[in-house]
Amino acid sequence: MKRTLYNEDHELYRESVREFLAREVVPFKDKWDENRWIDREVFAKAAQAGVYSLQVGTEYGGSGESDYRFRMIVCEEVARINALSFGLTVSLQDDLVLHYLLDLTNDEQKQRWLPGFATGEIIGALAMTEPGTGSDLRGIRTSAVRDGDDWILNGQKTFISSGIMADLVVVAARTDPKGGSQGFSLFVVENDTPGFERGRKLDKIGLPAQDTAELYFENARVPAANLLGEEGRGLGYLMSHLPRERLGVTAKAMATTRAIFDITVDYCNQRQAFGGPISQFQNTRFELAEMATEIDIVEAYVDKSVLAYNAGELTPVDAAKGKWYVSELQKRVIDRCLQLHGGYGYMTEYAVGRAYVDTRIQTIYGGTTEIMKEIIGRDIVGKG
Amino acid sequence: MKRTLYNEDHELYRESVREFLAREVVPFKDKWDENRWIDREVFAKAAQAGVYSLQVGTEYGGSGESDYRFRMIVCEEVARINALSFGLTVSLQDDLVLHYLLDLTNDEQKQRWLPGFATGEIIGALAMTEPGTGSDLRGIRTSAVRDGDDWILNGQKTFISSGIMADLVVVAARTDPKGGSQGFSLFVVENDTPGFERGRKLDKIGLPAQDTAELYFENARVPAANLLGEEGRGLGYLMSHLPRERLGVTAKAMATTRAIFDITVDYCNQRQAFGGPISQFQNTRFELAEMATEIDIVEAYVDKSVLAYNAGELTPVDAAKGKWYVSELQKRVIDRCLQLHGGYGYMTEYAVGRAYVDTRIQTIYGGTTEIMKEIIGRDIVGKG
Amino acid sequence: MKRTLYNEDHELYRESVREFLAREVVPFKDKWDENRWIDREVFAKAAQAGVYSLQVGTEYGGSGESDYRFRMIVCEEVARINALSFGLTVSLQDDLVLHYLLDLTNDEQKQRWLPGFATGEIIGALAMTEPGTGSDLRGIRTSAVRDGDDWILNGQKTFISSGIMADLVVVAARTDPKGGSQGFSLFVVENDTPGFERGRKLDKIGLPAQDTAELYFENARVPAANLLGEEGRGLGYLMSHLPRERLGVTAKAMATTRAIFDITVDYCNQRQAFGGPISQFQNTRFELAEMATEIDIVEAYVDKSVLAYNAGELTPVDAAKGKWYVSELQKRVIDRCLQLHGGYGYMTEYAVGRAYVDTRIQTIYGGTTEIMKEIIGRDIVGKG
Amino acid sequence: MKRTLYNEDHELYRESVREFLAREVVPFKDKWDENRWIDREVFAKAAQAGVYSLQVGTEYGGSGESDYRFRMIVCEEVARINALSFGLTVSLQDDLVLHYLLDLTNDEQKQRWLPGFATGEIIGALAMTEPGTGSDLRGIRTSAVRDGDDWILNGQKTFISSGIMADLVVVAARTDPKGGSQGFSLFVVENDTPGFERGRKLDKIGLPAQDTAELYFENARVPAANLLGEEGRGLGYLMSHLPRERLGVTAKAMATTRAIFDITVDYCNQRQAFGGPISQFQNTRFELAEMATEIDIVEAYVDKSVLAYNAGELTPVDAAKGKWYVSELQKRVIDRCLQLHGGYGYMTEYAVGRAYVDTRIQTIYGGTTEIMKEIIGRDIVGKG
Repeated sequence: MKRTLYNEDHELYRESVREFLAREVVPFKDKWDENRWIDREVFAKAAQAGVYSLQVGTEYGGSGESDYRFRMIVCEEVARINALSFGLTVSLQDDLVLHYLLDLTNDEQKQRWLPGFATGEIIGALAMTEPGTGSDLRGIRTSAVRDGDDWILNGQKTFISSGIMADLVVVAARTDPKGGSQGFSLFVVENDTPGFERGRKLDKIGLPAQDTAELYFENARVPAANLLGEEGRGLGYLMSHLPRERLGVTAKAMATTRAIFDITVDYCNQRQAFGGPISQFQNTRFELAEMATEIDIVEAYVDKSVLAYNAGELTPVDAAKGKWYVSELQKRVIDRCLQLHGGYGYMTEYAVGRAYVDTRIQTIYGGTTEIMKEIIGRDIVGKG
Repeated sequence: MKRTLYNEDHELYRESVREFLAREVVPFKDKWDENRWIDREVFAKAAQAGVYSLQVGTEYGGSGESDYRFRMIVCEEVARINALSFGLTVSLQDDLVLHYLLDLTNDEQKQRWLPGFATGEIIGALAMTEPGTGSDLRGIRTSAVRDGDDWILNGQKTFISSGIMADLVVVAARTDPKGGSQGFSLFVVENDTPGFERGRKLDKIGLPAQDTAELYFENARVPAANLLGEEGRGLGYLMSHLPRERLGVTAKAMATTRAIFDITVDYCNQRQAFGGPISQFQNTRFELAEMATEIDIVEAYVDKSVLAYNAGELTPVDAAKGKWYVSELQKRVIDRCLQLHGGYGYMTEYAVGRAYVDTRIQTIYGGTTEIMKEIIGRDIVGKG
Repeated sequence: MKRTLYNEDHELYRESVREFLAREVVPFKDKWDENRWIDREVFAKAAQAGVYSLQVGTEYGGSGESDYRFRMIVCEEVARINALSFGLTVSLQDDLVLHYLLDLTNDEQKQRWLPGFATGEIIGALAMTEPGTGSDLRGIRTSAVRDGDDWILNGQKTFISSGIMADLVVVAARTDPKGGSQGFSLFVVENDTPGFERGRKLDKIGLPAQDTAELYFENARVPAANLLGEEGRGLGYLMSHLPRERLGVTAKAMATTRAIFDITVDYCNQRQAFGGPISQFQNTRFELAEMATEIDIVEAYVDKSVLAYNAGELTPVDAAKGKWYVSELQKRVIDRCLQLHGGYGYMTEYAVGRAYVDTRIQTIYGGTTEIMKEIIGRDIVGKG
Repeated sequence: MKRTLYNEDHELYRESVREFLAREVVPFKDKWDENRWIDREVFAKAAQAGVYSLQVGTEYGGSGESDYRFRMIVCEEVARINALSFGLTVSLQDDLVLHYLLDLTNDEQKQRWLPGFATGEIIGALAMTEPGTGSDLRGIRTSAVRDGDDWILNGQKTFISSGIMADLVVVAARTDPKGGSQGFSLFVVENDTPGFERGRKLDKIGLPAQDTAELYFENARVPAANLLGEEGRGLGYLMSHLPRERLGVTAKAMATTRAIFDITVDYCNQRQAFGGPISQFQNTRFELAEMATEIDIVEAYVDKSVLAYNAGELTPVDAAKGKWYVSELQKRVIDRCLQLHGGYGYMTEYAVGRAYVDTRIQTIYGGTTEIMKEIIGRDIVGKG
């Protein structure tokens, strides 16, 4: 069915994004993968070209544009060129870090940080996960103790996306050991903070250019002015930002699924075997038909979610439904597409092989599929 | 997410349908199942109460209302009371027979038949399938040969819904053995037609009250005035009515899936085992969460399909996607719901057991899942 | 691969079973379904022809043959003729009731009951389940209180296979309300017991000829001589007989799966569509290939299980693995086979439709799939 | 159930293999992955330690041991240490190249090549696949034209395992363009052959240490003495060696599946979340229970296949069943195990992440899942 999500403004924006990616990302992305590092400058160029940070207010140099459809278009165009490491860093800004800063900062903090995000000169990261704590946020053990005008942080974080590259990190820490769910707060830890060290850049099965790191805080001294929002409300802040984070994963999943599927249809129409294209085989056609159906069906839900988000009505539970289902669909579709490519699918030079390894994390980060099901299940049986 | 398909008019209509069903169907449906026959009068009552035949023009005693959302509401309310044999006869009129008559009749024919449909006094059936011909319409062997002002029909049909009860049957026959796909025509065969005989009422694993029959034509003499549309265009007419038929199956599937799921949530919250409701088990919650997610996602597509149909924009391929996917979802969900009911699920007195057998035909009639995939697959690889 | 389970003796036995079924079951089974009742005499004939009760010792008129391969052959031959209601009553004797009696009776009891089983004159049933208690045996509320030489039973049982037909019922009751897992005992309740009443014959979605009933005990007076085994050890007896019960379900599932698959291969080779047999379609061949593979693979495990059972080495956990997996395979395969039959699959006159409804209970009784997974899971993570 | 495949000899052999791997592979394998190259010497050490080439006759320095259970043990031990790149090179020798040489060489050729395989000094490769030819062997376009005492080869091969490292390559070429299926022959092309060039070492998503290459033949001059078997029978030779190749994939799949599953059970028992090990969650236990069941069931079939192979009775169709099913199981299980690892599963330092990418090729090489289903399907419907 005709997709009605976008209007002309969105399609114009798409053109500009596409042009940017063709010029500034496509020629370099293989090299970034090889180097296991994305050239820092591309982000400043991207922000300035309007590829991200649109939502920063005009008074801080942004566009003040919060329509999520523009984000969706970026996801689609990044997926089309299969630059998922680049795309993830952008998503990290727009769907996570920036969103925390926009919602929780006071005026002084806004002045300090938002202009840097608007120009892409500041890259942020978000540090929740710890070695012994994945989805179980109440298990966070990094501590922050008040000392005069500072907070002293001690602890360790892991799996931190852009942990090496980031100029500032939003860190969740326990400020009151006896405070229960009211015992956590968020801090902005800047690069030059004494006692803040980067650990290893982790070696992943995919997303080679994307840096994922361990962070260490050893008596790291963070100014009280860097507390984000109110003391003790950290867990609530994390919770309230989940719908956007989940929608971010859903959007990337949807876009990548569609992009890899489209590539695969072309492949099946071109690749010859037994005297014709492999799309001559009924099994191939059925595989494509099943995937096309699932993708179209899921897209109806995703588009509806985007509009609900724009209207401020996307609930955490509805976002959870999209998050797990679409990321699992992505896994399933890319796996089938890889299989249809035969031996070529196993080669990194083919988009499908690259996407296969780059996307495997999608059902895990931002809340695993299992956590999503638990949230939805509790909602249904009234244990919310 | 909030469903936006319906407005106030639809919800008022829902009330009246619900009231009708509570009064005229609920008290009798078990007896109909037992008797393997639905009392004929209920259909006249239903039509007069506006439960179906809404689309017949006001000049013929109908409401001239073609908004498919009213049909959707009937599907939902019938599913809620689990009266699927009744619902199928209604669907047969509204999604199939009536639709052919509205589109293909001339004025004289409209005068003869539409008022009877508007009052529910005429029940129609559609006879395409033959013992050796399922989805392969070109294999139809029933023949119609012109003889003066009549056509002489010979052949056999099978799996004809309402074949015993119907007052008139729309019959597909070959009018030109050498005409290829231009060799088929449609006829309205009325009850008293000489040479038209009903065969066995077939014994099915579900839908006991619904009659499904074999029909025989042995030199059956049908007046030329009963030719539907133009001679030789029968296959085209069948094709052009497929989107509506497919949407009809999709609508029933969606409604039944949701209804059985809702019942199952209640069951899981009430049924006790090992010292608490079975919804205390993580596996139960995950099962419910998975189903809830799938149902919500698919509903977005179905609702979009309904609006597309209203706008005249639902393509045969998009209808095929909904048809196979939602009917397969229905099968999957009802099977899981039955399992969650344990031994009770196997008892016909529980809605889920009844629905399990009543709906198994949904992936088969109206074009099997396999035929749908073939249609979609060909569309994708450009062999349309 | 060549199946090596059987030797010549088994194949000779198969011939005699096959001959018996052709003569005494095939001509009557449709009538039994229609009557919702199996003629009682066929069981006496079957027992005397050696179709069941082989394991009763020669001193009581049986054959003293405990090789499970003979049971397996009966399952296969019953499946081949699709007489699952008959087969279930036989299984109930051989895999459940008789097994309890052989293991737990004293000499006097053996004298009283075993000859009647050997001749098929006594039909037994097993009554564990109660309206509020499915897999949760500790929830049994039927009570037995000692009163002189009798026990007074009060309570209700449900889903009791052969509950109407049975001459004696092995009943699990609580003999010590404070006894915890040592508080249950087993009793043989005979037909003429005062206070023992049959309730409704339950209406199921399948297995129409098989009777499934509610039983009521209202101050039912059972002689102390009818206590089975020792007082207080009932729960342990139930546990220790689970492997055999589970193997019984597995054997029936394996046999039916293979039988329906074989029928379906023939159907696909014969049924014509689009100018050839439907096995001309790659999708049909892939469906058959997938099922054939799964069936062969599972058969290797089932055959291994049968030999392990014969050797007294089949653990409850290994039996649980077979029980859930093979019964789920059965459900999956029969569903796919029905689909391949198209509209014919929905008709009860086709074996596949009949089997579809008759076997849906297999993943539920004898311990649901979920209970099996819980047992296996606890074993793996060491919570046994 | 107790596994009965192995006797004491096999277990002794297992000890020696385990000891070898611990000493010569474990300390180096990460470095091999990093270098994208396995040190050549390890293969000579392995052959001399009896890890492979056992089947070479004693007269050529081997052990003349053809019992496949020894191969199976190697697969299991290699899987246990997750050294799949190393394991694949060994499999390539034992399950493919060596097998061709043992069966098809004449005495002179045996003298020339077998001693080198027995000592591991010669590494072989097999070159069937071409850029335009995957499973479709009849599409091979590499040509061999007789020229005096030589054959002149022209063409290109791709996806050749050990293509860079190999000392000799068994090459399939077309010797009679009009010969139909009799037009292909096999040649041993040695390293120093003029006109034989290695192309790129291909970049794969997994198996980094394993070399996979393109090969080019440009008027490559191969002595007639290097023809393998008879001219024109190449396709038949390829066909007849498929069961062994398929069994080789099956064996690796089975071993890796079991190994990764075992690691995952340990992980789930140790990893803490929400106040306990993650195996405290019912969903985790169900996941493990489902996998344990499937693995045990499939193992029964694999073990039966190994014995059938030893007895010369494993048919191509039965081998195909194992090949696709077990490799698909492997994919499914490893994916679920990765998910249970959460974020750690995405890190290459965890065995499961490494295995996830290393094994994705298993459903593709050695005949894709789709080709296997086609073979099995044709066998069932009699189009063999």
